[in-house]
Amino acid sequence: MDMDITLSDYEYEIYVIKKYIHKFIKDKIIVSALYPKSDDFENKECFGDKILGYRVVEMVTTEYDFVPKPGTTSRILDSSVANETLSQLYSRLEIEPYITGPAFSNYKKKADVVEVIICELKRSKDEVAMKVLELLILLLIQHGMFYYMSDEIWRAQCSNRDTMSAIVKYLNSQVPQVRHATCLSGEVVLKVSKYDYN
Amino acid sequence: MDMDITLSDYEYEIYVIKKYIHKFIKDKIIVSALYPKSDDFENKECFGDKILGYRVVEMVTTEYDFVPKPGTTSRILDSSVANETLSQLYSRLEIEPYITGPAFSNYKKKADVVEVIICELKRSKDEVAMKVLELLILLLIQHGMFYYMSDEIWRAQCSNRDTMSAIVKYLNSQVPQVRHATCLSGEVVLKVSKYDYN
Repeated sequence: MDMDITLSDYEYEIYVIKKYIHKFIKDKIIVSALYPKSDDFENKECFGDKILGYRVVEMVTTEYDFVPKPGTTSRILDSSVANETLSQLYSRLEIEPYITGPAFSNYKKKADVVEVIICELKRSKDEVAMKVLELLILLLIQHGMFYYMSDEIWRAQCSNRDTMSAIVKYLNSQVPQVRHATCLSGEVVLKVSKYDYN
Repeated sequence: MDMDITLSDYEYEIYVIKKYIHKFIKDKIIVSALYPKSDDFENKECFGDKILGYRVVEMVTTEYDFVPKPGTTSRILDSSVANETLSQLYSRLEIEPYITGPAFSNYKKKADVVEVIICELKRSKDEVAMKVLELLILLLIQHGMFYYMSDEIWRAQCSNRDTMSAIVKYLNSQVPQVRHATCLSGEVVLKVSKYDYN
């Protein structure tokens, strides 16, 4: 599945995000996302969706050194925030065991959980949570840009990679055990040492 | 037309917004909105749409003293940001004479101009422009809430009216001539004196 290939480029980032998401669940920064039947869930899902759309378009239209061609911004957006993409992230972040009620069988509901998580991270105003959110959104933008391989997009992706490295470095410095745990996997050790160059 | 009635409740606010929008056009804070055929227009329209959706949902879900019932947030949102609503605002703000190219015949294109204006106000980071933007968004939320007459929504609308009064007072203090010009109309004088109570 193509979509899986693009997210697989970011194994290490997904690993770091997952560790933090599980920590935030334990620390009660993430709560409503685990109760999909509450009124609060729906409101936060709606807000999470808006936070995500806003940030993706803000990045794509203002934070790179080019003006996207007509249609490019909305195509990157559509791909970044698609329910299929978010539901895949839901699976990769291994959130399912924490959810109350029966397992979801459809994309939409899994995507909704990720949107509520986005809302709860944003609203927490916690500095580390903000960084995790930024990393998560950058990951989605990289995914959204995957099919638009112009020079401009390629430069934007390189710039994103630098930003993601810097965020991962920051997150590792916050909770050193996340990094140590990662080093148990030989494959990931190489990716860790990549960040040491900076 | 029902929609017209709800916006007509805010004649004075619309008047103040209009004066400032025309000023921002002269001051080149609003530029891209006037060139609907540029690449920049499409990117800014996309971003303006996201800014508006984000702010409406943020207000509805976090700034009042109640949790909206399931479906309420998205219904208020849909109505607040509908192309019909935005295109009506486009007409009321009398932006058409400034637009390059032929007059628009459809809702969507008029709504797009308002979204670009929202983007340009936001990006200007100008303090007065931010206040005008907030007033414009509050106006759209009041419109979106019009058909949901529960006690909770009524209290939210009252709270919005207070905020709108405060913003109008601030804007009048920034450019006194806007206020003086308004006093030429007998009907509006009454509305001005309402704000003097605060």
